[in-house]
Amino acid sequence: MKLDAYIPGEQPKSRDVVKLNTNENPYPPSPKCGRVLKTFDLDGLRRYPDPNFGALARTIASLHGTTADRVFVGNGSDEILSLSARAFVENNESIGSLDPSYSLYKTLAAIRNVKWTGGVEPSTSLFLWTNPNAPTGEFAEPRSIAAFARKFPGVVIVDEAYADFARGNCMHLAVAPRNRNVIVMRTFSKSYSLAGLRVGYCVGPKDLIAALYKVKDSYNVDAVAQAVALAAIGDRAYHERTVAKVVKTRKAFSAALEKRGWDVLPSEANFVFAKPPAALSAADAFARLKAEDIYVRYFPGPKTGDRLRITIGTSAQMNTLLKALDRMLKPHDKTNTKKQ
Amino acid sequence: MKLDAYIPGEQPKSRDVVKLNTNENPYPPSPKCGRVLKTFDLDGLRRYPDPNFGALARTIASLHGTTADRVFVGNGSDEILSLSARAFVENNESIGSLDPSYSLYKTLAAIRNVKWTGGVEPSTSLFLWTNPNAPTGEFAEPRSIAAFARKFPGVVIVDEAYADFARGNCMHLAVAPRNRNVIVMRTFSKSYSLAGLRVGYCVGPKDLIAALYKVKDSYNVDAVAQAVALAAIGDRAYHERTVAKVVKTRKAFSAALEKRGWDVLPSEANFVFAKPPAALSAADAFARLKAEDIYVRYFPGPKTGDRLRITIGTSAQMNTLLKALDRMLKPHDKTNTKKQ
Repeated sequence: MKLDAYIPGEQPKSRDVVKLNTNENPYPPSPKCGRVLKTFDLDGLRRYPDPNFGALARTIASLHGTTADRVFVGNGSDEILSLSARAFVENNESIGSLDPSYSLYKTLAAIRNVKWTGGVEPSTSLFLWTNPNAPTGEFAEPRSIAAFARKFPGVVIVDEAYADFARGNCMHLAVAPRNRNVIVMRTFSKSYSLAGLRVGYCVGPKDLIAALYKVKDSYNVDAVAQAVALAAIGDRAYHERTVAKVVKTRKAFSAALEKRGWDVLPSEANFVFAKPPAALSAADAFARLKAEDIYVRYFPGPKTGDRLRITIGTSAQMNTLLKALDRMLKPHDKTNTKKQ
Repeated sequence: MKLDAYIPGEQPKSRDVVKLNTNENPYPPSPKCGRVLKTFDLDGLRRYPDPNFGALARTIASLHGTTADRVFVGNGSDEILSLSARAFVENNESIGSLDPSYSLYKTLAAIRNVKWTGGVEPSTSLFLWTNPNAPTGEFAEPRSIAAFARKFPGVVIVDEAYADFARGNCMHLAVAPRNRNVIVMRTFSKSYSLAGLRVGYCVGPKDLIAALYKVKDSYNVDAVAQAVALAAIGDRAYHERTVAKVVKTRKAFSAALEKRGWDVLPSEANFVFAKPPAALSAADAFARLKAEDIYVRYFPGPKTGDRLRITIGTSAQMNTLLKALDRMLKPHDKTNTKKQ
């Protein structure tokens, strides 16, 4: 099997880096997660975890007004995608997605040894619709996704990794009693600030959820992850506050970029996808920011190579970034530069 | 896709159960693991974990006298098996194992949609050799496995989940510079008492390890699991003491069963596979023990149905079990029974 591994964004060793390259949350997880870690029953780790993540699945179900038999939890959303590629795609079928979209999807198809299609072809049995999309941040109206799903014969996974930062989502499609083929996927990595923990979940029709259970490893989500995720999802007030802060910063930062002549795609996520003014190429800006220990993401290629994907950090981090960008766009006047 | 899900041993809710059914360690993890949980940097969980589990892989490599590029870590050994079925088996090939062996292997082949073979057939490209074997506990001499691997054209995974309780192992085959096709797999679930955490690892030739990296999810082992496993593997003295206690109890318990007329297969694992005397069937003993809140494992079928697989717990747990078995085998004399 020949394939290119998916390349995740860099994880620099230094803590001093302004890290705006992997869409992590700039705020820590709920303090309730910390309490779970501190008081965790060590002896309990001798035993296998709950293979069906009962308490966590019930809490997720209750949050979304559905039942636990319509909920599946994975070792990160990545695992759910990987299991879906096994459960919903036969060897002669293919996986479709928007283009551009989350770059992992192509790798996923390659690993599963099936074709990836930008859009839908007759062989497409699984369609991955990221909403808000990555790396663009753009939001598709749920009614468009619903209309697509009604006509599509296969399974549609709406990857809502960023939906908590958006003005809407498709969960109502997933929990609808007559839903036949829509799975909505969420993650604890972004809005819950738990990327380090690897917990994702999805909600969908019972038979599709049961199909995921059948192909998963016996104990795919560890006991600590189950307990910490449960604490995070239980702290609604903290979650809302954190999300509101990120959204507020996104709006302010987008406006600040636009004021400086950048073209910013309207974003409903915790990042923006923005094109610098003519005087600065995206590739150049990426490299020069990195040299200043400011990490953003650059995806070369015809559809993405003229923009940077910039994660929304704290206000202070965004200001550091804006100042660095201002220095790059100012004439090379040393006196002027020193004023920054 | 039609398949029977692997059925793990029961996880009873009650703490009062004498739980000898899933080969968990009766002793808690190293106290150093507890310290890691208590002092874990919560804010760090915002960020994705090290995708290559660097510190853990280097420590594992150093323990076995090899280099980190020959080490892979998985979300439990189960994940490593599942990735191996993708990396080392084409659609027209098959997965072989001993028979009987770990019952997950058949499910693994079914999920991968390839044939499972008890032994080797021309199509077998991946052979899973559990040593010590489960559910028998029997130990195969490493030289027999080496001889098999030399002739076998595919990949041999020696599943050494129980090797820490055995008189030998195959790690020298895995780390040998000229090794072409032997991968040795270990787990933190048994001898390190961390079944709840889901960490397994394997050691093998660089190209096979690289093939596993290519098919894995980006961040397959979470940050807490990496840190706790690192603490566990670093506490050699604690590990040795725990293993020694289990081995001592296994010897005493095996002798006690034999004294009572049971046929006990010579075990090098943390369980025994034993046949009750003629007066008691294994199925019956299983059901009656369960009624007394003593859980052991019973695998129906022609090759396994006349025995029970009994995990080695604490001495006190084994004595509780022995007393319960004694009551079953005594004549139905109420006076006598009450003496127990």
